[in-house]
Amino acid sequence: MSATLTTVEETLAGYARLIGEEVERRLAREDSPYLASLVREYPRRGGKGMRPGLLIATCRAFGGPTREALGAAVSLELLHNAFLIHDDFQDASRRRRGLPTLHELHGAPLAINAGDALATFALEPLRDTSVLGGRLARRVLDEVLAMIVQTTEGQALELGWRRDNVVALAPADYLELVSKKTCCYSTVAPLRLGALIGSRATVPLRSLARFGFHLGAAFQVRDDLLSVMGSGAVHGKDALGDIREGKRTLMLLHLLGAVDASRRAWLVEFLGEPEEARSDADVALVRELMERHGSLEFARAYADRLAVAADAAFEDAFAGVPRSEHVEFIHALIPYMLERTA
Amino acid sequence: MSATLTTVEETLAGYARLIGEEVERRLAREDSPYLASLVREYPRRGGKGMRPGLLIATCRAFGGPTREALGAAVSLELLHNAFLIHDDFQDASRRRRGLPTLHELHGAPLAINAGDALATFALEPLRDTSVLGGRLARRVLDEVLAMIVQTTEGQALELGWRRDNVVALAPADYLELVSKKTCCYSTVAPLRLGALIGSRATVPLRSLARFGFHLGAAFQVRDDLLSVMGSGAVHGKDALGDIREGKRTLMLLHLLGAVDASRRAWLVEFLGEPEEARSDADVALVRELMERHGSLEFARAYADRLAVAADAAFEDAFAGVPRSEHVEFIHALIPYMLERTA
Repeated sequence: MSATLTTVEETLAGYARLIGEEVERRLAREDSPYLASLVREYPRRGGKGMRPGLLIATCRAFGGPTREALGAAVSLELLHNAFLIHDDFQDASRRRRGLPTLHELHGAPLAINAGDALATFALEPLRDTSVLGGRLARRVLDEVLAMIVQTTEGQALELGWRRDNVVALAPADYLELVSKKTCCYSTVAPLRLGALIGSRATVPLRSLARFGFHLGAAFQVRDDLLSVMGSGAVHGKDALGDIREGKRTLMLLHLLGAVDASRRAWLVEFLGEPEEARSDADVALVRELMERHGSLEFARAYADRLAVAADAAFEDAFAGVPRSEHVEFIHALIPYMLERTA
Repeated sequence: MSATLTTVEETLAGYARLIGEEVERRLAREDSPYLASLVREYPRRGGKGMRPGLLIATCRAFGGPTREALGAAVSLELLHNAFLIHDDFQDASRRRRGLPTLHELHGAPLAINAGDALATFALEPLRDTSVLGGRLARRVLDEVLAMIVQTTEGQALELGWRRDNVVALAPADYLELVSKKTCCYSTVAPLRLGALIGSRATVPLRSLARFGFHLGAAFQVRDDLLSVMGSGAVHGKDALGDIREGKRTLMLLHLLGAVDASRRAWLVEFLGEPEEARSDADVALVRELMERHGSLEFARAYADRLAVAADAAFEDAFAGVPRSEHVEFIHALIPYMLERTA
């Protein structure tokens, strides 16, 4: 592990602790049966703190204090957990952060309901206008609502492609998907919100969004790769879960274009089966084909190119911003996206 | 049908048309595949317009114009549709407003996602502070978010009782459930929001909440009764759906206390089975037992008592409000709740 990666992980861990306490405090008021323990379950398993960390660091990079970014950071973290609950059900995932998914523990109806509640709790920190003032608070709420809508649009695309077994997809389609389902709430919104709050709405947000897109896309390609690398336990999710779920990962799109016609036909048939019909052997074979046809290598090289683009976009977005440990941390997230193992 | 009922339905139809156009306009901007047509599906099937109608009428009763109440009314109608999508999945319902439910049409993952998007679109009309001003707009948002949380708490209770086959329930437990899962967003919030906006936050809202509770409870008991009366097609839902789903209706709670020990044991076993294991014959038998043991009569008498309490609460809540067609309409909703057939 590189020194940079270690530093990034330590900084993230600090943000994760801060946000974890704030999330716990906010959810403590909820005491309803069949709901209270469910909304606390995922947050208590702990997360990387990447989204709130990026948001707070960006706010500080632009000269704002942590205190002013805290509400929006908590909001994003709660939304992330709400998305995960629904996402796990939609993907029929069995494990999350090393433990059974919420719908496995409590059944789908109660899990879906807990996700709905958590998404609402997520908006509560944004109601407080005493810290940011009415006008800025309103812009923050606008950003967050627009971000949720984009995320559901991305989710719709991903679920729709799988349901209809859409396979005529190029990397450009993958990037469109990823920009909506991942980048928007994982990197673009944290950067935009952090800059909006930190600068008191005085800097343009477009270049931050471009940096966030490349950074988030690199994050997602790494996520795709992690799902087929090493043991599932390390990653805290199902081993080879993406392949079993038929997810349109970058490796899968590459593989569909790399195999011969008869193998492709088999692969399309495999993807068209209901998930429970996909055998362990077939899942392992897809994994092996990805290795054999260079799909993993393709994805790694693709992530590298995204990182180069992220680097250029970073320079542009932070051109006028004084160097600080926060700017350094944000910059170091680029290699972190390529190297992270969890 | 009484003259009052006809008048109420005509007034509601007017509100439903007004809100229907506004909802359509708001959803028109969404054009994503696998999402746009899904979020429009339930609203286009039309609703009773009860929630937005009650909200706007209350605003007008308190002297405010329709225009000022429109955003909150549209918000509630969109939330209602979002709740229905998740609710239908959670209850494994097959029909809604006379057509297949959204998860039957598109599968559960895409339907859940459409509900998430719709719940977010529902908050957009509340962001506009130009009509109400910042302070009042913020109170409206507070009310709506608190209302969503209460609704998920009620939903959790209902789903939890069914999942764990809880049968030791009295009418008081039923009322607690109904006050959260139904009254809150169907009657209490429309009344409180309407008065808040119409009076520019100058009247106390507690007495309106009490009226709303009795009115909403009467609405829900009638809903319970409609599910076991006549043909399902009239109601637009599954015939005998509540019995098949094991819903803790007022009639079911009465029946559990009215039958002898062996019949009770059978009933508890029936309720403990997975839904798909409940035969048509058993569902019909439960319906017949309700008739035989006076459960329907009990529910009707209970609704009548709720209506009497609603009437007293109405007099209290609207004591200082000038008589108008809007006050009359709100008052006439009490008998409407007892008589409505859809």
